[in-house]
Amino acid sequence: MAEQIATNITWHEGAVTAAERHKSLGQTGATIWMTGLPASGKSTIAVALEQVLVQRSRCAYRLDGDNVRHGLNKNLGFSAEDRAENIRRIGEVAKLFADAGLITITSFISPYRADRDQVRKLHADADLPFLEVFVDCPLDVAEQRDPKGLYKKARAGEIKGFTGIDDPYEPPLHPELTLRTDQLSVAQSVQSVLDLLQQRGLLSAT
Amino acid sequence: MAEQIATNITWHEGAVTAAERHKSLGQTGATIWMTGLPASGKSTIAVALEQVLVQRSRCAYRLDGDNVRHGLNKNLGFSAEDRAENIRRIGEVAKLFADAGLITITSFISPYRADRDQVRKLHADADLPFLEVFVDCPLDVAEQRDPKGLYKKARAGEIKGFTGIDDPYEPPLHPELTLRTDQLSVAQSVQSVLDLLQQRGLLSAT
Repeated sequence: MAEQIATNITWHEGAVTAAERHKSLGQTGATIWMTGLPASGKSTIAVALEQVLVQRSRCAYRLDGDNVRHGLNKNLGFSAEDRAENIRRIGEVAKLFADAGLITITSFISPYRADRDQVRKLHADADLPFLEVFVDCPLDVAEQRDPKGLYKKARAGEIKGFTGIDDPYEPPLHPELTLRTDQLSVAQSVQSVLDLLQQRGLLSAT
Repeated sequence: MAEQIATNITWHEGAVTAAERHKSLGQTGATIWMTGLPASGKSTIAVALEQVLVQRSRCAYRLDGDNVRHGLNKNLGFSAEDRAENIRRIGEVAKLFADAGLITITSFISPYRADRDQVRKLHADADLPFLEVFVDCPLDVAEQRDPKGLYKKARAGEIKGFTGIDDPYEPPLHPELTLRTDQLSVAQSVQSVLDLLQQRGLLSAT
């Protein structure tokens, strides 16, 4: 029986090409890399954006602290070396997801320009779109929000090396998009990202 | 203008659920974990399987040495510790892909039972299907194939710790599927995996 059914199966030598994948999925993969201060709004926007994309039958996936820090990167701490390795691995995984044809949304502080630029290069080398979204919120506004009370702890010296307080945040020099989350609603921020995807031809219908 | 368009955007609190993702993609994610000796046929089957799935408009992606060892795991060698970490990271990434709704195909020797069982547990804990496929080929047949001349080098002592020669391969005790690649064609092997996916309800039409 296996032989009979097997006659239906045909394939060519070599791996699935980007064009074949695009044709099958009706979309092109891309990485949307959100970066910004703690409590700047990265996760909120990422969660809403993923939902809107999935509702529109786009293949989208979100990489964040919840599914990465406790899994793939659970053996990393917060030393300078480990922080760099954290972003490196996330960048590599985002690249794999983009290569698989998904719109991949990452929401990590990713404070250092050099680390982000390395991820950008990784995507460029593989000819995959990389859209850096600067989730820009003034420090005093982020600190007022402080939903997890982390700024407060950092100010009290209970947390060391906290981005924005005693560890630097290096804003992107040429982000594809900047979202002033002290001025925009979540819906407006999501719409801005959708507009960007549209402009880049990354929301094409199936 | 942003405000006007933004009125079309609605979302609920919290992340996309598995049910929403399933509805959007028309499929459920799963990991197909191929394991077997070097030159047993893992990659050949994985490449063909991925193609057939993509041709059928399934979201599928293959993790293999080419896109993992040179990227995510490029800072790992072949010590016992690094081999375990190699499989751990691949397992975590496969889980993320399955969580994203993709049929994920991994083709790594993954010689140690404990490492594979850990990946199985990882999936079980997240309620994601994990299908261990034992690509079973007698050592002498694999050694005769030897497409990269690696067995020859291992026999000559030029490679140390080569699985099947001077490092053990621990076959799965309860694999979901065993493919005797010395007896089955590639098409037959692919069909067997498709049958398994069908039986598990993982090929349901959109």
